[in-house]
Amino acid sequence: MNVGFIGLGAMGRPMALHLLKGGHPLGVYARRPESARPLEEAGAKAYGSPAELAAACDAVFTIVTTTRDVEQVVLGERGIAEGARPGTVVVVMSTIDPAASRRIAEELERRGVEMLDAPVSGGEIGAMAGTLSIMVGGKPEVFERIRPLLECMGKTIVRIGESGAGQVAKMCTQLAIVATLQGIAEAVTLANAAGVDASKVLDALEKGAAASHLLELMGRRMVNRDFAPGVEARLHHKDAQLVLECARDAGLALPLAALATQTFNALMARGGGKLDSSAIVTVVEAAAGRR
Amino acid sequence: MNVGFIGLGAMGRPMALHLLKGGHPLGVYARRPESARPLEEAGAKAYGSPAELAAACDAVFTIVTTTRDVEQVVLGERGIAEGARPGTVVVVMSTIDPAASRRIAEELERRGVEMLDAPVSGGEIGAMAGTLSIMVGGKPEVFERIRPLLECMGKTIVRIGESGAGQVAKMCTQLAIVATLQGIAEAVTLANAAGVDASKVLDALEKGAAASHLLELMGRRMVNRDFAPGVEARLHHKDAQLVLECARDAGLALPLAALATQTFNALMARGGGKLDSSAIVTVVEAAAGRR
Repeated sequence: MNVGFIGLGAMGRPMALHLLKGGHPLGVYARRPESARPLEEAGAKAYGSPAELAAACDAVFTIVTTTRDVEQVVLGERGIAEGARPGTVVVVMSTIDPAASRRIAEELERRGVEMLDAPVSGGEIGAMAGTLSIMVGGKPEVFERIRPLLECMGKTIVRIGESGAGQVAKMCTQLAIVATLQGIAEAVTLANAAGVDASKVLDALEKGAAASHLLELMGRRMVNRDFAPGVEARLHHKDAQLVLECARDAGLALPLAALATQTFNALMARGGGKLDSSAIVTVVEAAAGRR
Repeated sequence: MNVGFIGLGAMGRPMALHLLKGGHPLGVYARRPESARPLEEAGAKAYGSPAELAAACDAVFTIVTTTRDVEQVVLGERGIAEGARPGTVVVVMSTIDPAASRRIAEELERRGVEMLDAPVSGGEIGAMAGTLSIMVGGKPEVFERIRPLLECMGKTIVRIGESGAGQVAKMCTQLAIVATLQGIAEAVTLANAAGVDASKVLDALEKGAAASHLLELMGRRMVNRDFAPGVEARLHHKDAQLVLECARDAGLALPLAALATQTFNALMARGGGKLDSSAIVTVVEAAAGRR
């Protein structure tokens, strides 16, 4: 299968390399040609537009950042839809609004082009190691066709349901993450305010019922005030907003999702978007009356 | 060392048995004599009051439920303080308000009696397996003297700091737990409302960055509407209230602690106190506008 990849940033580059290493002929497109260079050096072929790339491919993956970016790359001028033949599969691995994802899929379907939404969890580390979690929405038969390609990039690949379901699962993941982060930040703030060594508290928490990878990683960063990313807060901020949009579309009030989003809003306002998300502890402290 | 134990409920009974099995001569006291019977059959000696028990012991453990219960057993009529000799160590394993814990310790200190606060995490399963996490506050030399006894009951034993610090650590644990539960409940509610199979969503979440023991255990119960305990919600409810009292004493606003406590308040109001804590998903759904 000829495979295309668009979105060669910190996530996309290692993911595309895994497809190459898996023995799949790879074409790429990048707005800035220098972004494509490392892939070309590894054997990929660069194209001049998403449309040209799509015309040469059976499946085109994209992991650009925003909903607008995805719409541009897929449906915009010289976008994937212009070049793709009927039967081609577009795999959108960006995290975007489920409703927007369904709209794009419907637009493609009208042209006979298939789409899967396949957002990922696991960050740059997971992308480099090829151990991402990939949550997929779309037709079962299209999923089965694309699964071997996804297996080059991820370790856990779950088809959640129909179109948009992968994005909903990603929203649920992000909701659970920002909620847990808010809880850890409040726990660390409580330990500090009560005059107790928060590092010792983490020693105990990490072995108890509240134990989690997030607690170990982010709790330590909060205690050590070590806010070098990690995952930049602006990315969790973006996803938290998407969770709220998804909740609104589903007709839902989710108070913790709203609270955690406010915390990230405040961190952005304080200029912390490029810090690690553990920096929300500074906002939680301020809101708690501590600083 | 002669050891005493008071509070022979679902947690205390297996913990006391571990002390016996560890080869320590054990005395017990129970308000209702039948509660002491299983321990007597295993070789423990029953006493008629906490004071009589304390007079025969070098260390007395207690894991009764509320702050009031602890005050009664330790400082009340025929309480531990009446019988204990100078140098005796009282180990309070109940989860109580850190400020109250410090007051009780100071009262004992005036009589030359030592105290450790040593609340536990890990539930009945951890108590039976002897794998509890024990968070300790008090003097280092007293901790070192008691540590071998704690090691009979727990796997992770951390001295957090001075008097009350164990209770603060437990508050942080409970805060992290109820916060995470609220987040999981909102994520499950979002999946259901968005028309996606929440069970599949959990399949993906359990392998991603949000993975935790709580997510696996409680997320499944929420999805399956299986609310048999587990941990009864009334216990998390009690501890959530303590977290808020601890925050107030520390001069802190903790919005997520407050939110999660409201959720448990509402579950209690709906008569769900003896359900598993995963039943908070029903409150989250109602608050979200779903039921």
